[in-house]
Amino acid sequence: MASVNAIIVERMQSDIDLIPTLAGHLVASGGKRIRPMLTLAGAMTTGAKNAETEEAQLNAAKLAAAVEFIHTATLLHDDVIDESNMRRGQETANAIWGNEASVLVGDFLFARAFELMVETGNLAVLDRLSKASARITEGEIEQMLIAGKPDTDIDAYLSVIIGKTAELFAAASETGGLIAGGDDAVVASLKDYGMALGVAFQITDDALDYAADETRLGKTVGDDFAEGKTTLPVMMAFLQGDAEEKAFWQRTIGAGDLRDGDLAEAQRLMAKYDAIEQSLAEARKHAEQAGQCLAALPSSPAKDALIETAAFAASRAV
Amino acid sequence: MASVNAIIVERMQSDIDLIPTLAGHLVASGGKRIRPMLTLAGAMTTGAKNAETEEAQLNAAKLAAAVEFIHTATLLHDDVIDESNMRRGQETANAIWGNEASVLVGDFLFARAFELMVETGNLAVLDRLSKASARITEGEIEQMLIAGKPDTDIDAYLSVIIGKTAELFAAASETGGLIAGGDDAVVASLKDYGMALGVAFQITDDALDYAADETRLGKTVGDDFAEGKTTLPVMMAFLQGDAEEKAFWQRTIGAGDLRDGDLAEAQRLMAKYDAIEQSLAEARKHAEQAGQCLAALPSSPAKDALIETAAFAASRAV
Repeated sequence: MASVNAIIVERMQSDIDLIPTLAGHLVASGGKRIRPMLTLAGAMTTGAKNAETEEAQLNAAKLAAAVEFIHTATLLHDDVIDESNMRRGQETANAIWGNEASVLVGDFLFARAFELMVETGNLAVLDRLSKASARITEGEIEQMLIAGKPDTDIDAYLSVIIGKTAELFAAASETGGLIAGGDDAVVASLKDYGMALGVAFQITDDALDYAADETRLGKTVGDDFAEGKTTLPVMMAFLQGDAEEKAFWQRTIGAGDLRDGDLAEAQRLMAKYDAIEQSLAEARKHAEQAGQCLAALPSSPAKDALIETAAFAASRAV
Repeated sequence: MASVNAIIVERMQSDIDLIPTLAGHLVASGGKRIRPMLTLAGAMTTGAKNAETEEAQLNAAKLAAAVEFIHTATLLHDDVIDESNMRRGQETANAIWGNEASVLVGDFLFARAFELMVETGNLAVLDRLSKASARITEGEIEQMLIAGKPDTDIDAYLSVIIGKTAELFAAASETGGLIAGGDDAVVASLKDYGMALGVAFQITDDALDYAADETRLGKTVGDDFAEGKTTLPVMMAFLQGDAEEKAFWQRTIGAGDLRDGDLAEAQRLMAKYDAIEQSLAEARKHAEQAGQCLAALPSSPAKDALIETAAFAASRAV
């Protein structure tokens, strides 16, 4: 990961000082770097004989940096779209430097991600990550379209989180396998692993956004509620609610008419129907499934790391 | 161009209806399609023996569509950044569907552009256009940084317009040459041609934004003034102005304190120093230079088209 971080810092440089300043603010703010880790570990689990060469390792590191750049670009754009002022306990880039700069630096990082991928010379990787990038934006647009609609069906929600989160997790681990020359079965296992892990992570995030303990998530509780996002715990509480409760969700999530005490009432209704616990159980199911996807891979420290990540995802969801 | 248009329409499709609706609004609004034309003509001027195969022509068309997608993505983001309500005589996408949708559909088109490039299987083209995409965003950021500063020096302005406009013109014609297998000298000529043409186009746009006749440009006169953009005619009038005139530019372009009659006063000061005519003369110089870049290329209808485009650029600048 040290070489990935070095590439990230080097490649966000530009003659325009604002670019590394703004990008560095987000990059240095302590993200978990899960996606580039998936790429590196994916590359190291394949057992392919050329994966250990210096060139192969540099290519895997470049690819991991590219994946993190794509993620960072989407975060910059998300914060503009959500008009967010805080992320990871810090002011957002758009709050400090404005929406224009955040949109453009996001575009810059996206372009740089493709530069890095081109340098690996691997067209399969470029194919996979360009398709994933399109799918991410589709997921974000779907999320926008279901916002304010607590009566959304679960399939539409799953499509959103697969697009906005799981698709990049899947492409990160899958392209790690691809760049290391892993065989088709290994690459497919890595993809399935990333997909299940991403679904687990996003459902957990969505559930913990209504959990009482703010320190668990590292973000403010109630953000999704304030933004009218339609997420799994909301949908579960809505689905099981009586007419009066459904009207509450339509007024708050639906119409955005928020009053004092509404967040507490939302949490009370979720507790009544066990909606947070049910959501976390769903997340755990996907996290466990992720671990199982790796069963056929040969033993290695990298495989252990991926299994630990799946276990960590499951442990968040309690 | 018919096959390029077919690819554009086909590839902006998505299961999310909003994507083709929003993208189609801009794509159908009558842009000049200069950039994809440069790519196609660039491919057809090389005289390379494989350029006439069906596969080569399909790849050139895909590349041309990719170039138009990159351009369309930057327009969607520009309109969000500039808070523009009108483009090409129509309401902008952000005015109709909101900033969120415009940012995300821009991201989608950018990702689709890379999908199309990957399909051509040509890494040199991917390298060139990923670098150009990064440079475009740098130019846009530089433009943001010099906004409101009429005392900007000309080199900084040239860097802005090379980045935000000429770089994609250059990459469009250059990659046309590359994908057709043109030799290095031909590809270099096409790049130089596109760069000079792009500079000519942007200076002309910037000058005509202050011209009296709105029909010449197809956009409202005074947009750049209202947005405080630092462009060549402003810089020329500022540079030659006396202390009182400099104070006028600092109040308007600089501080954004606009009053009735300010646009007319700006135009009067430009007329006093011949700033629009001088700007257009500069644009004509670059347009003529563009035509000269093609001197060494073999005669062909495609070369004639490129020369005509340069002549058209010069003719706009009168």
